[in-house]
Amino acid sequence: MTLPLSEDLWPDVRPETARRLMAAAVQSFAERGYHATTTRDIATAAGMSPAALYVHFPAKSAVLFAISRSGHQRMLTTVERVVAGAPDDPPVAMRALVEKFVAWHANRHVVARVVQHELNALPPEDYAVVADLRRRTEQLVRDVITAGVEAGAFEVPDVRTAARAVLGLGIDVSRWYTPSSKPAPDELGRQYADLVLKMLGHR
Amino acid sequence: MTLPLSEDLWPDVRPETARRLMAAAVQSFAERGYHATTTRDIATAAGMSPAALYVHFPAKSAVLFAISRSGHQRMLTTVERVVAGAPDDPPVAMRALVEKFVAWHANRHVVARVVQHELNALPPEDYAVVADLRRRTEQLVRDVITAGVEAGAFEVPDVRTAARAVLGLGIDVSRWYTPSSKPAPDELGRQYADLVLKMLGHR
Repeated sequence: MTLPLSEDLWPDVRPETARRLMAAAVQSFAERGYHATTTRDIATAAGMSPAALYVHFPAKSAVLFAISRSGHQRMLTTVERVVAGAPDDPPVAMRALVEKFVAWHANRHVVARVVQHELNALPPEDYAVVADLRRRTEQLVRDVITAGVEAGAFEVPDVRTAARAVLGLGIDVSRWYTPSSKPAPDELGRQYADLVLKMLGHR
Repeated sequence: MTLPLSEDLWPDVRPETARRLMAAAVQSFAERGYHATTTRDIATAAGMSPAALYVHFPAKSAVLFAISRSGHQRMLTTVERVVAGAPDDPPVAMRALVEKFVAWHANRHVVARVVQHELNALPPEDYAVVADLRRRTEQLVRDVITAGVEAGAFEVPDVRTAARAVLGLGIDVSRWYTPSSKPAPDELGRQYADLVLKMLGHR
């Protein structure tokens, strides 16, 4: 029993109509880019009228913001859970973090591309909310690396650059991954986790 | 004495008018995306009439193709030179490769974003040309890794995944790098080269 895509992606969004509009927007933004997509395109792709869209979202940018905030919130929550699950073992936390982060960007490459690459189209006040989620996620990754260095498990000359590299590796997967890519998302996550642990000097 | 941006980016393109149109297109595509940009937008940004654009490029997609092909050709040439410069020393070749690749994506993040993220907008026959340049670049990176494994200098379980990670790290820099980012492009290249050599199991 698989959930419809929109429910799996946005379990916290209600009603289903709003989720359907978000899923239609992801497809349209991915195909044509944000700027070339109209609210009419989104509504039509969702099988609705433009007026029905405005019931849920005051503007096209509000749909992008909902998609972007939700994607970033999910990544932050994923990282928070992983860190909480292995508070005293930075290598275990880092392995789980990379596995989940990479698998998500492979499985959800279409929505991830919109989440990661249309940031500049967000209105400033919306961008600030998303930027804060990104900062908190990056800070958690840095904290895991720092804890690993202090415990003697990692050897890292520059924690900030290492954290960017870890996140960048995962995000980049959404750029090239397609349904026919190999290996499968979970296996890619394991391989990338091995590479990251070596990159961080873990023996 | 600094060269104008367009001459530095496209030394092989003549005349200067075509380079100016390509530079204007990069700015427009970066700001609004390829699909929302018109040939009139590009011509206006270059201080020309739409008719003047058609003297050099038969369509908007031809401008994107010229930018994309040139960027991919430059990356392939960079990797080829680096490999030729250290034919028997895979770690030295890999270090130079990552330093140059990362510094280019940081220095030229605006054009690199267009080159790396608007691939899907290329007409099929143009995409095939660019895809071939990408395949050859990726194959060279794999060859360096394989040579390093055979020489006992690298320890890599999956060469294909490792090559994707190396290139992905560099490409991802263009996503987040801005003129105010730190460290400077060359230093970032050195730090990433250190990380990549550790990732490949080099001691």
